[in-house]
Amino acid sequence: MREFKSVNWSINMSLEDSNTYTLGSFFIALASIFIAGKVVSSIFVKFRQPEVLGELIAGVLLGILGLIPLYGEVGYHFFHLLAEIGVAILLFEIGLETDLNDLIKVGLPSLIVALIGVVAPFFFGYYTIYILADMGFISFATDGSLFLLALTVAATLTATSVGITARVLSELKKLNQTESKIILGAAVIDDVLGLIILAVVSGIIATTGGTGSDFTVSIPSILIISAKAFGFLILAILIGNLFTKKLFIFVHSLKARGSLLLGALSYTFIFAYLAKLAGLAPIIGAFAAGLLLAKTHQKDLIEDRLKPVADVFIPIFFIMVGSAVDISSFNPFIKENIAVIILAVVLSIVAIVGKVISGFGVYNLNVNKLVIGIGMIPRGEVGLIFASMGLVSGVLTKSEYSAVTIMVMVTTFIAPPLLYKFYRD
Amino acid sequence: MREFKSVNWSINMSLEDSNTYTLGSFFIALASIFIAGKVVSSIFVKFRQPEVLGELIAGVLLGILGLIPLYGEVGYHFFHLLAEIGVAILLFEIGLETDLNDLIKVGLPSLIVALIGVVAPFFFGYYTIYILADMGFISFATDGSLFLLALTVAATLTATSVGITARVLSELKKLNQTESKIILGAAVIDDVLGLIILAVVSGIIATTGGTGSDFTVSIPSILIISAKAFGFLILAILIGNLFTKKLFIFVHSLKARGSLLLGALSYTFIFAYLAKLAGLAPIIGAFAAGLLLAKTHQKDLIEDRLKPVADVFIPIFFIMVGSAVDISSFNPFIKENIAVIILAVVLSIVAIVGKVISGFGVYNLNVNKLVIGIGMIPRGEVGLIFASMGLVSGVLTKSEYSAVTIMVMVTTFIAPPLLYKFYRD
Repeated sequence: MREFKSVNWSINMSLEDSNTYTLGSFFIALASIFIAGKVVSSIFVKFRQPEVLGELIAGVLLGILGLIPLYGEVGYHFFHLLAEIGVAILLFEIGLETDLNDLIKVGLPSLIVALIGVVAPFFFGYYTIYILADMGFISFATDGSLFLLALTVAATLTATSVGITARVLSELKKLNQTESKIILGAAVIDDVLGLIILAVVSGIIATTGGTGSDFTVSIPSILIISAKAFGFLILAILIGNLFTKKLFIFVHSLKARGSLLLGALSYTFIFAYLAKLAGLAPIIGAFAAGLLLAKTHQKDLIEDRLKPVADVFIPIFFIMVGSAVDISSFNPFIKENIAVIILAVVLSIVAIVGKVISGFGVYNLNVNKLVIGIGMIPRGEVGLIFASMGLVSGVLTKSEYSAVTIMVMVTTFIAPPLLYKFYRD
Repeated sequence: MREFKSVNWSINMSLEDSNTYTLGSFFIALASIFIAGKVVSSIFVKFRQPEVLGELIAGVLLGILGLIPLYGEVGYHFFHLLAEIGVAILLFEIGLETDLNDLIKVGLPSLIVALIGVVAPFFFGYYTIYILADMGFISFATDGSLFLLALTVAATLTATSVGITARVLSELKKLNQTESKIILGAAVIDDVLGLIILAVVSGIIATTGGTGSDFTVSIPSILIISAKAFGFLILAILIGNLFTKKLFIFVHSLKARGSLLLGALSYTFIFAYLAKLAGLAPIIGAFAAGLLLAKTHQKDLIEDRLKPVADVFIPIFFIMVGSAVDISSFNPFIKENIAVIILAVVLSIVAIVGKVISGFGVYNLNVNKLVIGIGMIPRGEVGLIFASMGLVSGVLTKSEYSAVTIMVMVTTFIAPPLLYKFYRD
């Protein structure tokens, strides 16, 4: 009736132990992330350099020490999700400090900056690949494959990652300046443009089967993608405006501990989810949530209570970004790296110049145009998505992928010190 | 040279999409946890009932709706780890509000309460199983197997889970009362006693191969386990006392945003890890970290900045505890459940009485002895560890396991309202 299994109880403990062993490792991993981030950042702050650069470099160090990927798949997912929560909270915090009307006021200059910041790097990148191929730097199979390579590299150059810039603007307490608003507006528009470019480029690859000839791009599908993205943003703001104030009067009346803070975070996460449904980056939704809550009576209270939570989550994002740097591809003593480094240097110059000139598209406004251009430089994870798609489909070789990755990292690491130099009075 | 794969790019997107799809679900899952927790808790607070009971019930509801286990293995691990961070932060917060000297002052009454609270439920539970077997309620194969069953059930009844009680004491703002200190001290001692019982019971099962006869228990190994656990606690406090104050003067001098808060959290996580290494629950380490930081000059600042972070993480723990309740085993219309429910009711009464009398072991002190006993009632996850070991080794049948689980849940859910009733003036 009662069947005994000859399982050793100390083995059965492993059921719980595998959990708690992992648990122990996670506690140590979290502590390492926090300690490394704050120690390196504090050194940067001491020398009046961007705190966020300290976190990125702490991430690189933890990556080299093997402290971040060591924790297996569960660990990877866990820290990745914490990082995503972190960057969502960052954009929410930025939105909370931004006046929607001011953002709309700079709508036209934002649009111009976004368009130039997409078109210029695209063409620069496209022709750079053709020129490098002419000079014999790049090997390719057919004219079609060269076309696809140029197209993919050009696409990676168009992205803008708003996280880095937003963080630096917040560190410098410049979020209320016109320059900052133009950058934020342009970054949001750029996310939508990025979706359209993604649709076009992937359409070309899919219909040509990788040969680059006889492609068709479905105009209706591109229109649908654009309409979904813009539609989400407009509807979220319009509908959100109708009930957000009343909703948060109710939330604030709840008596349970931390209701207002958790209400604001839930609102952020729901908007992040909706943005994702519309095909946009979740952080765009989080930013929209911040814009809406900026108009509530509880704005200051929310900001105050959010700060320590932001302090916990945001560094995890930047440390994870830093930990993704593959330091070995920078080693010039490895022969195969030299071609990669040359391509990376050329692409980085193109990437920086292409975005910096976008700032000079702003006319009639007395703003620091250079700062706007610099603010658009970081490519971040958006550029990496293009690059990894190129790698998986075979359009990019491993070396070209490495070069593009280095370009993304260079733009990410160079923007904070440049902004500090040119935007701090 | 360049090989193209005919992979559809929209399929390649799934690489990223599987991540971000999950990402979207996580955002919604987190939002559901926060919203359900705060809405149900607010109703409880309105009727002057424990907030934590609202969170437990919100967890039960989310479990019934399938909202928590829906997110697959990654989701399970993710929310489980967040919950563990939550309970660690709770015990750290409690430690921060506790004066170590006061805790040492009530050391003797705490020890008496812990000992009675282990011995009484153990013997009650042990003889209850024999009495129920005599009455034909329990089927068993051999005398040995009945002995092992009684032993295992008795062991589950000895556990004390400090999380629930600590949270209620904090809600009632009673952490400074002598009763609260006796409860906290007894719970820490009980965790060590639990380790010893675990070693003895698993030793008996292992050496008898499940027959319950001719067992040997290794006294040296039990001494080592006890020495490790007590040694950790004493060393952590003694060594920690030497450098913690100076360390946090340094941490507070760091200029990076949130250094003090992240320093305190890192300290907590490192102590949680060390406690785990010593074989104790990580929360005991977190509690010790709180006791140490309570003596620093930055105590008030840390407490202030920790509060919003605690508001985010702590509810996740209680909601996860609630979501683990298998509501179907409570359905009396399913015939097989009736025997389970009878056993569960008997065990719950034994569990409650066994702990309540422990409070009456306190002599010479003018305290509310009933409250101390009630504070020791919740078995929580510690009881569940014993039960799942019993299930895996075959000592417990599925029905007996269910009954033990229900007993754990009853003790967990009944303690908060009882404490509110008898401890609120």
